[in-house]
Amino acid sequence: MIEYRNLKVALLGAGNVGAQVASLLLEHSAELAERVGAGLELIGIAVRDLDAERTADLPRELLTTDTESLILNADIVIELLGGLEPAREYILQALNSGADVITGNKALLATHGPELFEAAEQVGAQLYYEAAVAGAIPIIRPLHDSLAGDRVRRILGIVNGTTNFILDRMHTTGATLQEALATATELGFAEADPTADIDGYDAAQKAAILASLAFHTVVPLDAVHREGITGITLEQVEAARHAGYVIKLLAICERLVDAQGNEGVSARVHPALVPQDHPLAAVHGGKNAVFIEADAAGDLMFYGAGAGGLETASAVLGDLVSAARRHVIGGPGIAESRHAILPILPMASITTRYQITLAVPDQPGVLAAIAELFLEHGVSVETLVQSVRAQQDGSTPTATLVIGTHEASEASLAATVSSLAESPVVETVSSVLRVEGL
Amino acid sequence: MIEYRNLKVALLGAGNVGAQVASLLLEHSAELAERVGAGLELIGIAVRDLDAERTADLPRELLTTDTESLILNADIVIELLGGLEPAREYILQALNSGADVITGNKALLATHGPELFEAAEQVGAQLYYEAAVAGAIPIIRPLHDSLAGDRVRRILGIVNGTTNFILDRMHTTGATLQEALATATELGFAEADPTADIDGYDAAQKAAILASLAFHTVVPLDAVHREGITGITLEQVEAARHAGYVIKLLAICERLVDAQGNEGVSARVHPALVPQDHPLAAVHGGKNAVFIEADAAGDLMFYGAGAGGLETASAVLGDLVSAARRHVIGGPGIAESRHAILPILPMASITTRYQITLAVPDQPGVLAAIAELFLEHGVSVETLVQSVRAQQDGSTPTATLVIGTHEASEASLAATVSSLAESPVVETVSSVLRVEGL
Repeated sequence: MIEYRNLKVALLGAGNVGAQVASLLLEHSAELAERVGAGLELIGIAVRDLDAERTADLPRELLTTDTESLILNADIVIELLGGLEPAREYILQALNSGADVITGNKALLATHGPELFEAAEQVGAQLYYEAAVAGAIPIIRPLHDSLAGDRVRRILGIVNGTTNFILDRMHTTGATLQEALATATELGFAEADPTADIDGYDAAQKAAILASLAFHTVVPLDAVHREGITGITLEQVEAARHAGYVIKLLAICERLVDAQGNEGVSARVHPALVPQDHPLAAVHGGKNAVFIEADAAGDLMFYGAGAGGLETASAVLGDLVSAARRHVIGGPGIAESRHAILPILPMASITTRYQITLAVPDQPGVLAAIAELFLEHGVSVETLVQSVRAQQDGSTPTATLVIGTHEASEASLAATVSSLAESPVVETVSSVLRVEGL
Repeated sequence: MIEYRNLKVALLGAGNVGAQVASLLLEHSAELAERVGAGLELIGIAVRDLDAERTADLPRELLTTDTESLILNADIVIELLGGLEPAREYILQALNSGADVITGNKALLATHGPELFEAAEQVGAQLYYEAAVAGAIPIIRPLHDSLAGDRVRRILGIVNGTTNFILDRMHTTGATLQEALATATELGFAEADPTADIDGYDAAQKAAILASLAFHTVVPLDAVHREGITGITLEQVEAARHAGYVIKLLAICERLVDAQGNEGVSARVHPALVPQDHPLAAVHGGKNAVFIEADAAGDLMFYGAGAGGLETASAVLGDLVSAARRHVIGGPGIAESRHAILPILPMASITTRYQITLAVPDQPGVLAAIAELFLEHGVSVETLVQSVRAQQDGSTPTATLVIGTHEASEASLAATVSSLAESPVVETVSSVLRVEGL
């Protein structure tokens, strides 16, 4: 039996993920020591309440409420508290005492990332965060390392399992949004208050982190355009299927050039139509996937469990092995690369394709008037499908128009939609959806 | 403009991938320097013939035939020669002179991997090989780092683009194997001599590399069971579709326990039935994907381009940035972990499900006799579908029996099939396929 030097690991938080990390760390300590070349000694688990109920049996003697002393004694600190404070304060303490830090705290990174990475760089420590985006799926490391010699053009991510479960269920069972949400809550896919998920806040945090990493540029959370799924109707889902699409809530990070020729980046979260033969369309249930388009590598996709205590613990342990190996080797950490500092372009400057559904009176001249209106705003129509619903009461029948556009700017599209809404030949603008993945 | 210290990079080989690596390296040198914190100076490109035609314009003054001097002057050596010798000799020279080495040479790694990793470990250098498996797809780094704290149970990989193109084409267009192969050759997906691809040699090399890495155990190439796709008929493809499957050539690496209770690993390459709703079934054309089942992380899939000069060059550049960052930081490389040293179990001890298609005379007693024969060999039948083809000549009509088994060992299955072949109630054993991904 080889004797290893021990690295001291402190765990902050014993929630769903934290408890699994502690269990795996204690259970696999011999195997991990062999992989690292040093022992990983869990010296303590900081909790708020020593007597709270836990999802796993943790040795009572490891629990402590003295977080600050625990941090001071550790070589590596794992922060799984969630929330902004005191997590931020503890991470800064750990970094300043020279410890490497592993966190799964997406809210914190999306909000205070630059401050934390700066603190790590100043002392030559490293901040790992694989668990913060897409749970078990290795996505931070591929972006940070594997694609470090390439140039990422675009990321399309299904990064929220709850909304993917809901949309997938609407598609596969014909459930309404409310019914699908109820099922998600019942099965534990949605939290009691699902706002952070269904309004896209969770996905927006992940988009900010992914865009910052992929484009070597700080993309703050409030620069991420955000729309949730609450407006999505079963009618839209069915119309999408009929037209060869599925509706997915996407986190989209793009490097693009605006109409004035400025290169910049954009990050946004919104529901979008995805072609049925796109790899993202095959991501079902609560699964996550991140689709990356890079200049040299072409299209890549990373698929797996985006949440779950055990699954996310796998990502934390991967980071722990990396941090521990770095301690064994020595040397400073690799700073987050922020050299590009590309401007963040406003939502108005992104371009994509759109699908617009209108209710119009079925009478002569309507189509021509609508075509004219698109033309005025410089939005080019690619497809137009009209279906007529007979009226029972003898009034003018209503037609449904589904219009697919060529690539157009968000600004032109917004102007077109607002003109359509005011036009006398349009009864209702029933649906406006972006089309992605073409 | 920051002045960086320069790291000296030597490139061996200027073929399809090598020429792209050189172009990207020269074109993006400023951006790469910022990501690494040091300049990457391409000091020379070793070629056999200075005047050979290249896929990219390379500066004439960088070309050299003096490979050994080039290696001696380099901090990092990129080997893209292919083949066993002199690639092996050059890599050993580079490692022994203290250089880090990047290679995309799967044949070499599958054959002489242990010797090369050992040489790297002895001098504290690092051997990178992301480009050797699945081209642009980051798979080595996730296995080496991201899943380092987890335990991989099984890998199912579509790791050969040529055979996936051929099988996908048979499925989607109804082409025969020969027709699909002809199209693949025409479109440049297959080489003039496609033996290495269609007989599974290429996939077997990748299976050996993946199994060695995932299970921390040396799995030599000749321990990989190998079957190619030449026996696959359009009939089998159509029957598979009818039953809800697609046929894929899979590289399968498993950690398993044999009938005697011995834990071990197994690596094999063969065509298999994959359920249509499995993520691997949606991998079309020449794309590759690696599906990983891990204890904690659950199911993960990595998808992308498995070949192509530019795509593979992206993986080489990712390794180059990692190697260069390590030089900037200092410290020895991280040795390949071979601590587990699990035994490699023979093919006979793996268990899976099987689908067996038989032609039998449509007469009383046949079904009972066949069921009895499965029972004798301890292979449990899960499904049985019989269809009868009418005979024109008045002789006994022939029935087609498609039998799906529960999990059974390869040894029992082989015994069952050989009994079936000899049985008086069986006309022909038309097809035996393993079912994977359930």
